[in-house]
Amino acid sequence: MTVCIIGLGLMGGSMALALQKNNLSTFIVGVDNNENNALIAIKLGLVNHVDTLANAIQKADVIIIAIPVDSTVNVLPFILDNVKKNTVVLDMGSTKEAICSAIASHKNRHQFVATHPMWGTENSGPMAAEKNAFGGKAVIICEHEKSSEAALKTTQNIYTAIGMHLIYMQPNAHDVHTAYISHISHITSFALANTVLEKEKEDDAIFELASAGFESTVRLAKSDANMWVPIFMQNRENVLDVLNEHIAQLKKFKSCLEKENVPYLFELINKANGIKQVLAKKA
Amino acid sequence: MTVCIIGLGLMGGSMALALQKNNLSTFIVGVDNNENNALIAIKLGLVNHVDTLANAIQKADVIIIAIPVDSTVNVLPFILDNVKKNTVVLDMGSTKEAICSAIASHKNRHQFVATHPMWGTENSGPMAAEKNAFGGKAVIICEHEKSSEAALKTTQNIYTAIGMHLIYMQPNAHDVHTAYISHISHITSFALANTVLEKEKEDDAIFELASAGFESTVRLAKSDANMWVPIFMQNRENVLDVLNEHIAQLKKFKSCLEKENVPYLFELINKANGIKQVLAKKA
Repeated sequence: MTVCIIGLGLMGGSMALALQKNNLSTFIVGVDNNENNALIAIKLGLVNHVDTLANAIQKADVIIIAIPVDSTVNVLPFILDNVKKNTVVLDMGSTKEAICSAIASHKNRHQFVATHPMWGTENSGPMAAEKNAFGGKAVIICEHEKSSEAALKTTQNIYTAIGMHLIYMQPNAHDVHTAYISHISHITSFALANTVLEKEKEDDAIFELASAGFESTVRLAKSDANMWVPIFMQNRENVLDVLNEHIAQLKKFKSCLEKENVPYLFELINKANGIKQVLAKKA
Repeated sequence: MTVCIIGLGLMGGSMALALQKNNLSTFIVGVDNNENNALIAIKLGLVNHVDTLANAIQKADVIIIAIPVDSTVNVLPFILDNVKKNTVVLDMGSTKEAICSAIASHKNRHQFVATHPMWGTENSGPMAAEKNAFGGKAVIICEHEKSSEAALKTTQNIYTAIGMHLIYMQPNAHDVHTAYISHISHITSFALANTVLEKEKEDDAIFELASAGFESTVRLAKSDANMWVPIFMQNRENVLDVLNEHIAQLKKFKSCLEKENVPYLFELINKANGIKQVLAKKA
C-alpha cells in the first residue's frame, strides 16, 4: 500500500520507520513545507519520494497527517475535498476536539480516523525519528463511529501492527485526559526551565550541579514551540483548569514551608508517593 | 581502611558498593536504626557487619553519614564528641548550612568534611542501592578550609576514586544552588503527582494514557518524605524563593492562555528551549 505522510518530523518520521519495519507500506510519499526536512527525510530513508500535497493525495491509499495541530485543522478539509474514494486519512495530533470539529460535517468525514498515539520525545525534526517508536504504548481513536468500517479497520491494523493498544474515547474526554497526563507536564517543564534560566543570568555555575533528577524534570522543556503552542491554544480551557489546579497544589507546598507545617508537608509528599502504585500498575 | 556507614539506604548503600568496587575499604560497618534495613544490607553484601553507632564509631577510619539531614544535625555532634583522633567524618546530605552550623565551633570540627554528591534516584532503602552510582557526577565540598588537610585529602581521594569531580562552595551558596537544580524539581514533581491523583479520583482511566513524558516529570514524586521534608525545612528560605519564582513563571503561561497571547507563549517556550544548550554543555 502507498502511504502519504504529511509532516516529516519526529512523529511522521518515526511512523515512516515503523511502517517500513512492519512491512505495512510498499511506497511512502512524504510531504513537508520545509524543503530541508524533506531532503533529510529522503537521505535518512524515511520516505521513498517527496511530493506536493496535491500530488501526494492522489497517489495514496493511506494519508497520515503528522503536523502541528493548527495546521491539521487548516489542511484536513482540503485533503478530504480532494481525496480518492477509498483512501483512508488519519491524523496523529495531540488534540482531538478542534480537529474533529473542523471536519464534522464534511461529506468525506467517514474516510477520516482521528487518532493520537501516546508516544513522543522532546526532540523534533526528521533527525529525531526513532526506529522503535510506538511499541507498547496506547493509541487513542476518537469518535470511531464517524469513520467508515473500512477506514477504521485499516487504521486499527496499522496501529496494532506497530505494537500499540487501542483505546476509544470521545474528543472532549481525550482533550481533558491529555491536559492532565501530557500537556501540563510540558508547561511545568517549560516553566521550571525558565525559573532556573532566569537564575543562571546571575550565576553561570548553576548548571554544573544539575543532577539526573533535574534533567528528568526539565527534559520536556526542549520541546518545540511550533508543535506545543497550537496544542495549548486548541486545548486552552482544559489546560487552564489543570494549570490552576497545579498552581493550587504548589501553593500548598508554599504554605507548608511558610508556616513550617511539617505534618502537612509529610501528608502532601506521602500522597504524591501514590503515583508509584499508579505507574507500576500501568507498566 | 575500615569504613562506618551510618544509614544503609539508597545513598549509604550505593556508597558501600562504590567503596567495594574501587577497593577503597577493607571492612564496612553499617549502622541503621531500622533493623530490617540493616538485615537487608548484610544480605545484599553492602556491609560486612552491623553495629551500634557507639561501637561503630570506635572501629572506623572513615565515618560516612548518609541519613536524613535533620538526623545528621542531631547525630553529628555526638559523633565528633566520640570520634578517634585520626578518623575522618563526612556527610552526604543535600543541605549544608544547617549541618555546618551545627558543628561550627566543635573542637573536632577539623575532622569533619561537609560533602554533597550530586547523584541520587527516586528510590529509597538498601534495595535501591546501585552498583555504578556517582560516576561522572559532581560532588560539592563545603567550607573545606575548616577541615584538616588529612581529612580533606581522604575525602577527595574517595570521591575521585569513585569517579566524581570535586566542586568547592560555601554552604550558603550550595543551599541556593541546590534549591534551584534539585529541591524545586522535587516540589514540582510532588505537586504534579498530586494534581493528577486528585483528578484520578473521578476518573480511574486517566493513567492508561500516561506517556513517557509524564513519567519523566513525575518520577521524582516517588521520593521519600523522610528524606525530603527535612531538606525542605532546612533549606526553606531558598526553596521558598525559588518556589515563588516558579509559580510566577507558571502564571506567565496561565496569562498567555487566558489572553490567548500566542506571541508571548512562543517567546516563553523558545526561552525555555535554552535549557537544551545548557544541558548539552554540561554533558
